[in-house]
Order: sequence, then C-alpha cells, then structure tokens
Amino acid sequence: MSLDVFAPAYRIAAQVREGEVTALAVTEAFLARIASLDSAINAFTDVTAERALAQARAVDAARAAGAPLGPLAGVPFAAKNLFDIEGLPTRAGSKINRERKPAARDAVLVERLTAAGAVLLGGLNMGEYAYDFTGENAHDGPCRNPHDPARMAGGSSSGSGAATAAGLSPLSLGSDTNGSIRVPSSLCGVFGLKPTYGRLPRTRSFPFCDSLDHLGPFARDVTDLATAYDALQGPDAQDPACAQRPVEPALPSLHAGLGGLRIAVAGGHFATDGMPEAAAAVALVAKALGATGTVALEGAAIARAAAFLITNSESATFHLDRLRARADDFDPETRDRFLAGAMLPAAWYVQAQRARRWFQDEMMRVFADVDLIIAPATPCPAPLVGQKTLELRGETVPLRPNLGLFTQPISAIGLPVAAVPVFGDGLPIGVQIIAAPWREDLCLRAAFALQREGVCEARAPVLG
Amino acid sequence: MSLDVFAPAYRIAAQVREGEVTALAVTEAFLARIASLDSAINAFTDVTAERALAQARAVDAARAAGAPLGPLAGVPFAAKNLFDIEGLPTRAGSKINRERKPAARDAVLVERLTAAGAVLLGGLNMGEYAYDFTGENAHDGPCRNPHDPARMAGGSSSGSGAATAAGLSPLSLGSDTNGSIRVPSSLCGVFGLKPTYGRLPRTRSFPFCDSLDHLGPFARDVTDLATAYDALQGPDAQDPACAQRPVEPALPSLHAGLGGLRIAVAGGHFATDGMPEAAAAVALVAKALGATGTVALEGAAIARAAAFLITNSESATFHLDRLRARADDFDPETRDRFLAGAMLPAAWYVQAQRARRWFQDEMMRVFADVDLIIAPATPCPAPLVGQKTLELRGETVPLRPNLGLFTQPISAIGLPVAAVPVFGDGLPIGVQIIAAPWREDLCLRAAFALQREGVCEARAPVLG
Repeated sequence: MSLDVFAPAYRIAAQVREGEVTALAVTEAFLARIASLDSAINAFTDVTAERALAQARAVDAARAAGAPLGPLAGVPFAAKNLFDIEGLPTRAGSKINRERKPAARDAVLVERLTAAGAVLLGGLNMGEYAYDFTGENAHDGPCRNPHDPARMAGGSSSGSGAATAAGLSPLSLGSDTNGSIRVPSSLCGVFGLKPTYGRLPRTRSFPFCDSLDHLGPFARDVTDLATAYDALQGPDAQDPACAQRPVEPALPSLHAGLGGLRIAVAGGHFATDGMPEAAAAVALVAKALGATGTVALEGAAIARAAAFLITNSESATFHLDRLRARADDFDPETRDRFLAGAMLPAAWYVQAQRARRWFQDEMMRVFADVDLIIAPATPCPAPLVGQKTLELRGETVPLRPNLGLFTQPISAIGLPVAAVPVFGDGLPIGVQIIAAPWREDLCLRAAFALQREGVCEARAPVLG
Repeated sequence: MSLDVFAPAYRIAAQVREGEVTALAVTEAFLARIASLDSAINAFTDVTAERALAQARAVDAARAAGAPLGPLAGVPFAAKNLFDIEGLPTRAGSKINRERKPAARDAVLVERLTAAGAVLLGGLNMGEYAYDFTGENAHDGPCRNPHDPARMAGGSSSGSGAATAAGLSPLSLGSDTNGSIRVPSSLCGVFGLKPTYGRLPRTRSFPFCDSLDHLGPFARDVTDLATAYDALQGPDAQDPACAQRPVEPALPSLHAGLGGLRIAVAGGHFATDGMPEAAAAVALVAKALGATGTVALEGAAIARAAAFLITNSESATFHLDRLRARADDFDPETRDRFLAGAMLPAAWYVQAQRARRWFQDEMMRVFADVDLIIAPATPCPAPLVGQKTLELRGETVPLRPNLGLFTQPISAIGLPVAAVPVFGDGLPIGVQIIAAPWREDLCLRAAFALQREGVCEARAPVLG
C-alpha cells in the first residue's frame, strides 16, 4: 500500500481500525522515512524502533482479537527528549544528563498517548535544558527547519516542531515555559497547543522552571491536536501544580464555529514590534475570525520582564549543583544565562512574582469583555541557523531573547494558547489564539475554523 | 460601681447587656487605667479616647433602644499599630510611616470587632515593621512586661501582649509572621491565637512578609479568644491570600473536651533546645492533655531556615525604596537585617520556598496520626530589656533570632496555633498547641480544657 505520511492522525487511526492498513505497516513506513530523511533535519535524538514495532504489533493483535482500540490506535508520535522514555536516559538536550540511568518508566503524558493507542517512535532534539528559542544545540547539533534546512526549527521543542512538519511523525509532545511550543510551531508551520498552566501533569518529565513549565502537543491538523489534547488531560497527584480538574474534552465543540465569540487583536507592542510577515499573518487570521477591535495588553512588557527573571532564578536554582561541578559541560549558549540567574537578587524575583500577579489580574479584566485574543507567535519567520541578531523596528536586537517577544508575556500568566500556521509566499509564521484560563476549547474551536477555511494549514515541505 | 478590669470580656459583655454597667463606664474605667498605668508599660502608642467614648455611648444607646447587641458589646479592645485605624497614620512601629496620611478607614479586622460591639481604645506599640521578637523600639521606646517592667514584653506584637496582660484591654489584635503573636503571649502570660495562614483577611493592615503574615487575637481568657476569633472570621476579596472559606465557629465546640483527640509532644530540638522552664511548661501541659508519645518534626530546622530567608527577601523587597531613601530613619536593629535581605540571591529564596513545601508535606503526614502537637512557645521566660544574648544548651547565642526558635518552623507552613500561658514561681512562659490547617477549633478546645483545669491561666500582674 502507499501510505500518505502527511495524512492526519485521525485518518491513519481510522485506516488501522478499518483494517485498511496495519499499525505495523504504518510504523515501518515512518521508521523508514526517519531513516532516510532525518539526517537532513536532525529532529530525532533517539529512535525507539524495537519498541515502536512491538507496540504496533500489539495494536494489530488487539484489533485481530476484537479488543477495543483507542482513538489514536496505530498513530505514530514522538516526544521531546525531556520526557522520560523507559530505558533511555532523559537527556533534556544536555550532555550531562546522558550519564543518568535509564528512565524506569515513561512520563505520564507518554503513557496517556500510548494508552490511546499511539506508537512512540523516539525522543526529539531540543535546546539544552529547554533554555532556548532557536533549536540550536551544541551537543546534538541544530535541528533544521523542514521548509528550509538552512533555517532554524525554533526552540526549545525544535525536534517536535520539525518532526511534525516534516511528516516524520503526525503528532509530537513538547514543553513550553516561555514559548517553546509556540516558537517552533510558528517557524515550522504546524499547530501547537500550550494548555493552561496546571492542566497537564509534568510527572516524569525533566523540569526547567517549575512555576512556568507547561507540556503540550503538536500536530499538522487541528482535529489531531484536539484528539491528542483530550487523551492527555486529567489530574495526576505526582505533579503538585497539576489542577484537580476533570477531563474537559475539546473535541465535542471543535466544530461549533465562532458564533457568539468576542475576538480581539492584541495591540501595543504586539502590533508594532514584529516584522511585516507577523503583522500580515495576524491581519489574515483576524479577518477570518471576524475580530472586532483591539485590546492594549499594556502590562505585557512588564510580564515579559517578570518571566525572564523568574525563569532565570528558578532554573539557576535547579541547576546550581551542576553549574558548580560541571560548568564546562553545559552548552555555552545556556551556561552563561544560568550563571547569571544564580547571581540575581531575591528582591528581583519577589518583585517579578508580584508583577506577574498584577498582570494576571489585568488580563482577567480583559477577559470579562473578550473571549479570544489574536497575537503573533514570533516576530519573524525562521531565521538562518547560526544567526545572532534580528532587525526589529529598524534596530538590530539579539535574536535569542527576541524570538520569545510575543510568547513570554502570555505564558507568564499561564493562559492557554493555540499556535496556528500561516504560509505566505515562502516560509510559515505562527499566530497565537489566546483564551482565558481553562478555555483551551475556544482556542481549538478557532483553530479548527481557520483550518476549515483554508486560512491556517500545515503544508508538506519541499523535502518531503 | 467597681469594675473588675481583669474580668473576662464575655462577663463585661453580659454586664453591659444586662444593664449592670454601661459601656461608657467600662470604657472610662479602662481609659483611666491606661492613663495611670501605661507610662510604666508603654503598650499604647495612640489612645483613641474620643472615638472610644462615642462608640461606648452608641452601644448604650442601642441597648436603650432595644436594638440587638453584638457578642462583644461594650468590651474594650486595642490593635497593634500596623492595623489601619481611621484618622491615624498607620505607623507599623516605624518613624517613616508617621508621615503617611491618616487612614481613611479601619482595617477589616478592626471593623469586624467593632461590628461585634467591641470598643477600640487605641493603637499598640510594636517592633519596627514587625521585624522583631523583643518589643524594643528605637522610636517609641521598649514595651515593658507587666509581670516585671524591667523585662521585655516580647515582639513584635509587644503592646498587644502587654496591654492584655496588664488589664489595659481585655482583648487585642496582633500579627504573627514568625512568632509575633506567640512570643509576646508567652512572655506576657496571656492566650494568643495564630490562625491558619489565609484564615483572617489582612486588608488595610501594613504588611511585613506577604507569604507568611497572619493576624490574630490575644485575650486573658479562652472563651474570649474564641469569641473574638469567631467575630474575626470570614473571607475578604481584598486580600488575595484569604481563603474563600465560610465562618467555621470555634465557640460551639469549645467545651467538647479532649475525648478522642490524639495529642503528641514535639521532639527533636523542641525538646532539647529550650531552658528548663520551657521543658517544664510543656511537660505540665502534656500531662494535663494526656499526650501520648512524641513526634520528631525533623524538618523543623530546615523550615526555620526557610522562614528566615523568605522573611528577609520578601520584606526587603517591600521596603527597598524606603531603604534606599531613608535608611537613617529605620530602627538600627531592623535596618541591617532589611539591608541584608536586599542582597540575598534569588536562588536561596527559590530553594527556601521549595523547602517549605517539603516540610508542609512532611507535616501533613504527621497529622494523619496526630490531632494536636505540643511545643514550647519560647525557649525562655521574658529576658531583661536590652539583653542581647541568651544561654541555650550551654552556648551563648544571640537573643533576637532565638526568641523565635520554636515558633518560626510552625508559621513557616501556616499551621494554626494557640499559645497558652504557664506560670511557674515567677514569670510566665507559653506553650504552643498546634493543629493541622483549618483546625483552630481543636487548638482552642485544648486551651479551654487547660484553663478549666487551672493548668493555664492568665494572672493579674503585681502592678495591677
């Protein structure tokens, strides 16, 4: 059979369920594609071929036995290498962690996708310890953009964005502390969901910054994104930050349309500080969604500053022993920032937490009048690998921190966001669809409407 | 009439209600007593005589009109001068705050006692910005212990402990961040309640350290303490830390006795590091309560270190502008600690918050097997005013931080505590009755049983 590796996950699952294709054949096709194409992309750091084949055979055996199949039965997926994968050391993009003993058990989110029938293909490249927006990694090499391998995939979930865009995996898992799902979604042209802080448990994943770390899925199709998100939901007592909320599935209302939703465009620096591509993508999405008016989000710059300080302080605290003993083994691009974080005064951290609470209160007032807010995901399409600066508003600014210009203020207060891809003439760029806490369903409804209208669609890269 | 200024508040309220005495006569008697005795104690920084007389007349008028009277109708009280009192600048023990404009409205807890019929006599002395365990104050002079005016009242709620002990006010309000209700309760020989963190709203009181600040009442009688506590309860949206819990009155179960309660004595450094007076008081209370066994509380030293760092960091952040502009106007005893706090690294603060969560989890496991824990409130009875060191376990240690040796680990995780007084031959010393979160009722039930058996009783000081 000729398997379409760019088919949506729900169609692959339907084909497996109907017996049109075996899960084994699907898995073999993706493993073959990884083997032939990933050397040019560098999305995978570990391919768990044996496990994948065994899982696929188990799905086929279950089907043959008439056992019920999960909604993602036979659908391949892959996970950023900060998720525990049984039998592998959880490297989290670092050299140091490779010395850890192999994980005894999968991360909870890997377990949940597996329970839904999905088949794990392997672990994905990422920026060291998730402190990254570029997808460059001194130990594993840069992850490259499938739409132009001379360009960055974006980080820190670089492999998640690139593998999904390149048709190496229909679904993947990543993490987002300041933008690490949304930035690679934007640069690679796929859909990504950063759920509300506290929605998905982080149990058995390697942390970056506890009070800002979110996990979430990537997909090329919005139905797939919602299906994966629904399979990932549910409380877990092992993650104290995970809310004790029931599963609130997004799929049932995915097709509900936009009727009655009050949609606004983010103003202020969201409107002025990106490149023309970012503004054009937002305008296209705003028109398609029927957005009325703008909201200023005047505290965003303060929230972003707070996110910088909190990330820097908490992550440096977490890595302090490693910084003392093994500084030379860090990626130079992350080491200096961790060291700086170890020297910040506590007063800055305390003030940053206060600023964050203030911005949260501000935003809750905004959400009294608005259901969804549209903002760019990144200020630019994918830069070149190795690029160090960016031209924004006529100024040359450092590239790394500015890739998170529009994502940081939003994750700083844990709001749910769907990143949706817009393709211009060449490279893609993402747009954030932002909702009030716990309203991932609204982000996904809007993303689905945009996909249905052909405004936001993932595209097969030329290399595929 | 001859009014007994040491009568319990509930008896004063009954006398007012029955018409045996007017609220005005009660108020005049206490104002006269303050005028004649407070120069030796220095508990009051502001006497609101006019307001008190007007409030007392209003109570009498209400009674004459047959209007319903609150449970504390006609009972005088006073408040630590970090509570807003309409018309007064909220000095919080400082020189700098005296320049503030007068408060436009009473603190919520002052309003609630007033609504219960209580009559405010004035504002009470305290350690500067509440950063104190001694009750010494460079601007207002030391608050003195009614049982021996050469000795400390304890701090930072020095005036609250001293005014209550001296019969200058049957009830008072204070605050406790690391022990500031329990230390003066111990040294002055009265009952004090530090409720669960988040139980009582702090709206319109001057903060010290947001994540550790608690407010609570002092009384010479446990029924009075419970009556005041019940009147103070209830959520308030203006304090984001205040829990959205209904009023859970303690009075109805106050006489329920100890049947079925599992009571243990705190071991480890709580058992070994105090003076013999502390150990004797704990033994007396433990025997009276029928305590069985001990609990080690091994994480207490870590929790105390965490409380030091969190207090130092948060309070220095809060005072940073004042420290920069007005360092010379601080009390020298607090200034240097605030300055030190401004230079702590953020990594210490983050680590301290992590330690605190760890100890909280530890203690919740302890409370699976135990309902109440008994520990000393202070390591010693009241030291002399001006004393700088203490002999503990054969070592000379600095006095200020060590007065909080046994209180800090408990408030670090917000547990409710009743401090109960034990009188030996001379000076009193307090014992902490500690419960799981939201079980103030159990602390108060035990305190009532101890009072009924005559083990713990406030005594009239010699000067009275």
